[in-house]
Amino acid sequence: MRIDTISTFPDMFSSVMGASIMKRAQEKGIIDFRAHDLRDWTYDRHRTTDDYPYGGGVGLVMKCEPIYEAAEDVLGVERGALPAPGIPDGGTAVVFLSPHGRVFDDGLANELAEKERMVFVCGHYEGIDERAYELATHVVSLGDYVLTSGELAALVVIDAVVRKLPGVLGADGGAAEESFAIGLLEHPQYTRPADFRGMEVPPVLVSGHHANIATWQRRASLERTMRLRPDIIERCSSDGMLSDDDLAYLETLKGGYPCA
Amino acid sequence: MRIDTISTFPDMFSSVMGASIMKRAQEKGIIDFRAHDLRDWTYDRHRTTDDYPYGGGVGLVMKCEPIYEAAEDVLGVERGALPAPGIPDGGTAVVFLSPHGRVFDDGLANELAEKERMVFVCGHYEGIDERAYELATHVVSLGDYVLTSGELAALVVIDAVVRKLPGVLGADGGAAEESFAIGLLEHPQYTRPADFRGMEVPPVLVSGHHANIATWQRRASLERTMRLRPDIIERCSSDGMLSDDDLAYLETLKGGYPCA
Repeated sequence: MRIDTISTFPDMFSSVMGASIMKRAQEKGIIDFRAHDLRDWTYDRHRTTDDYPYGGGVGLVMKCEPIYEAAEDVLGVERGALPAPGIPDGGTAVVFLSPHGRVFDDGLANELAEKERMVFVCGHYEGIDERAYELATHVVSLGDYVLTSGELAALVVIDAVVRKLPGVLGADGGAAEESFAIGLLEHPQYTRPADFRGMEVPPVLVSGHHANIATWQRRASLERTMRLRPDIIERCSSDGMLSDDDLAYLETLKGGYPCA
Repeated sequence: MRIDTISTFPDMFSSVMGASIMKRAQEKGIIDFRAHDLRDWTYDRHRTTDDYPYGGGVGLVMKCEPIYEAAEDVLGVERGALPAPGIPDGGTAVVFLSPHGRVFDDGLANELAEKERMVFVCGHYEGIDERAYELATHVVSLGDYVLTSGELAALVVIDAVVRKLPGVLGADGGAAEESFAIGLLEHPQYTRPADFRGMEVPPVLVSGHHANIATWQRRASLERTMRLRPDIIERCSSDGMLSDDDLAYLETLKGGYPCA
């Protein structure tokens, strides 16, 4: 997958993209990541990318012109071609991060993981001229809070998407078994020592009885999800993702949470 | 505010914390940021921070021992003191990032911005031994998706919190006027040129008529929020944050969205 970012702080990506999983995904040739400096598409001495808002107000607004020209060059289309229907084609996502976007979740990460290319346009502690949003195929919000750095928001989306690409997580990764992939929150996990400062691992986990362990893990996952995110239980239930055993166990929880 | 992170990839913070607003917040002495390497609290030759999960399963689990010892040293309490009621005191947040946590939002960012210290314990593409969560004052989820990098999740929380600290955003920042601070999504913004490739700025914004501009901005904000996030309108309405004029305007939208 080719990933481009367009922003005024291209260096902000380096220490995250240069480490761990993201670094390995590049070394393996699974992703080709390029951070572009929006200022390369300005023509004045001060390399201006923002200006005062029409109608007044606090803060500056990022100008459309450099954003359009950067997007045109990054997408490899003629200067002045955008906005245009059919550009980019369906294999490319042009992602803007904004609090008014669609809230990012595992489903959207899956949708983006199917693309051949992602291009991120990142604002930085200021708004973007509304006309630039004509370029977006996806406007994404990380949640109901504001970030100074659109670069950081883009990194979150990149991390969540890239880890889903085949070959990125090794045998000790296991994206498919995690929270949300199966809908429910993950069950608690434990490793050695069995007794740490008087806190013991649940005995079933050291019993070696695989069926009992599987039952415990499933129930702990159901219990945790029911207690912390009843909305997820409802969704899984209406999607038919819960077995009769699951539903019977959830019924017993209505009197309280035994393993809370 | 003192901010510490405990993780196995302490270098992942550098390019975000070393740029822009976060850099300036440190230079101004508003935050004191320190990224600790969890491996400094291991005693074996391989500096092991993880181990196989009890009960089997894919992936490794981060061990409690180095996390407890790191937290004790970072918090300045005696070795073996944790977990203990009253440690840390109310001025310190010990934050774990996990999909089963409380969903991060502007309200939680405000709550954390009141603290004197934040300590982040970051996992990295693997779970954390459940017993380590005894240290947490806050378990936070960024949303319904999974990240490889707990460092990245911590950076998001740090960015959203630090920008709220007095003196961090200058006169051209303006955290208070943005999305969520007033509940509603922000109105569209525009800057020069007034006509870009045939897309014109709404005429009212260049009229110079301040009252009309204020009305347009408020209505555009109401319209966008109603269209994209009706849940926010409901919340604002029941919180009494909408004026009679606002409610009358929302009533007119029931037939369609004029400025969509």
